[in-house]
Amino acid sequence: MRAAARRIDGLVLRTPVLEISPGLWFKLELLQHTGSFKVRGAFNRILSAGELPPGGVIAASGGNHGLAVAYAARELGVRAEIFVPEVTSPVKVAGLGALGAHITQTGAVYSDAAEAAAKRAAETGALMVHAYDQPEVVAGQGTTGLELMEQTGGVDTVLVAVGGGGFAAGITLGVAGPGVVASGAVGSGTVTPGASRPRIVAVEPERIPTLNAALRAGRPVPVEVGGVAADSLGATQIGATAFEILSGPGVESVLVADEAIVTARRTLWARHRLAAEPGGAAAYAALLSGAYTPAPGERVAVVVCGSNTDPATLATG
Amino acid sequence: MRAAARRIDGLVLRTPVLEISPGLWFKLELLQHTGSFKVRGAFNRILSAGELPPGGVIAASGGNHGLAVAYAARELGVRAEIFVPEVTSPVKVAGLGALGAHITQTGAVYSDAAEAAAKRAAETGALMVHAYDQPEVVAGQGTTGLELMEQTGGVDTVLVAVGGGGFAAGITLGVAGPGVVASGAVGSGTVTPGASRPRIVAVEPERIPTLNAALRAGRPVPVEVGGVAADSLGATQIGATAFEILSGPGVESVLVADEAIVTARRTLWARHRLAAEPGGAAAYAALLSGAYTPAPGERVAVVVCGSNTDPATLATG
Repeated sequence: MRAAARRIDGLVLRTPVLEISPGLWFKLELLQHTGSFKVRGAFNRILSAGELPPGGVIAASGGNHGLAVAYAARELGVRAEIFVPEVTSPVKVAGLGALGAHITQTGAVYSDAAEAAAKRAAETGALMVHAYDQPEVVAGQGTTGLELMEQTGGVDTVLVAVGGGGFAAGITLGVAGPGVVASGAVGSGTVTPGASRPRIVAVEPERIPTLNAALRAGRPVPVEVGGVAADSLGATQIGATAFEILSGPGVESVLVADEAIVTARRTLWARHRLAAEPGGAAAYAALLSGAYTPAPGERVAVVVCGSNTDPATLATG
Repeated sequence: MRAAARRIDGLVLRTPVLEISPGLWFKLELLQHTGSFKVRGAFNRILSAGELPPGGVIAASGGNHGLAVAYAARELGVRAEIFVPEVTSPVKVAGLGALGAHITQTGAVYSDAAEAAAKRAAETGALMVHAYDQPEVVAGQGTTGLELMEQTGGVDTVLVAVGGGGFAAGITLGVAGPGVVASGAVGSGTVTPGASRPRIVAVEPERIPTLNAALRAGRPVPVEVGGVAADSLGATQIGATAFEILSGPGVESVLVADEAIVTARRTLWARHRLAAEPGGAAAYAALLSGAYTPAPGERVAVVVCGSNTDPATLATG
């Protein structure tokens, strides 16, 4: 994790924390380059690969991940191909184009685009940057957790949203302290005796319960994807890497209704002037709705992780 | 200044800084309670007064200051009367009402409402909280500068917007270090030899040059008010307290065109996901437009100070 932090230092923003009341922090990862944490994993994956193939890098995404890979590739002077499904909004396609990525729009939904990207990668030898299910991606996202612990001086609990689970898994490792970090392998979960390790509250929309369903089944299983946060948390199945970490001790799975996400997003704007997308507001929804209730004196951090949203909908959406 | 900081500690947010590139910080004062720095001065003025009169507190404002006084009064359990002109938008009137303030909407423009508020204060004995021209208000706003210096480890230059000048004057004192603070009186400007004192770049819209005109005239003079930032920077004349401080050494007056403010506001949203109002983006406009150009290696802080804006206009306004 610290190796990842050194690798991406200066390329990503050290996003600030805001203590909104005593012992309650927001980690403002929505202010990150391209509006989400995804650039951390993208940079770490690309920079971990050593010399890149002539084909550059390739990714499939309808949104935040694609923007992040395109941004990282541009900053590193690397060719990027991004495969997006036909449902992707023209605004996002334009955003990818503005970052200089080569865009292929194909297939109805994300999984079609992902399949086409994998086929293309096999032909060109380009480095695949997965949206969540690669150890280097997980380690990159986890640097958010390292920063959070340094900036707050330590917390008891971290609330974080789950889609494919790469961010939550990375943060689980990132906040665990040197005991876990020293163990090296992503997913080992080894804790030095006595090391303090914050509880992770892994928050999912009721309508996309990838982790919750996997924990019940004992393994990653596909779920139906729907609801207000589907554009950012809409993975059909929890990543294998993430499941290994998030099924360990100290992680609590919590579900929130779409209405709670909408309310949290509105509240982030009305009270705190933070422009979050629904997925970025999901972790706060767990706190605001009472789906997770801290004990008196519990030190809590909420990761607000995405802001790729139409600002016109902030007051009304 | 440190007395003000102690007085309002825990009542206002310690807003974070964001280092967007090496040596360039945003002070995110737009995330403050009620969406602007104004609560700092409001709390400090009210808490400095000792026992309050039965009439509570009173203020005139069409916007951020009114919201701040209403918020501070509510938090302190004090009665608040806010006088607003008829031009004030229904949204802002509703916001004041939601904070429990007693609202009187009277007169065409701000100065009419201010006159009515002064008359009412004379009748009721309520404590007047001026929008900028009181030492306690200036000292409260200046706590932003104290924080900024602690959070960044010190900068060479601070860019800050000027309306009535209370915020810029406060920051001028707040960033000046113990040498100035120890001198006690607001406006003394005395610096301990050897104390480092950042340059203040006082940024105004070309269409509301209250400080610039006063510096040319050698005294506060009325100016015509217009342009995109008139709702937050639209004082007709620089405050006397502010002029005393801002006409001293180490303060540079810079003007920006409305177009530069609009571009800066759009850029803050597009690149940094910060939802600023035009006045809140004015300081950044000076940097982005080249109206102020830092030397190589100069450590610069830009105060982004207000977010009371219609989010629907962020991408287009």
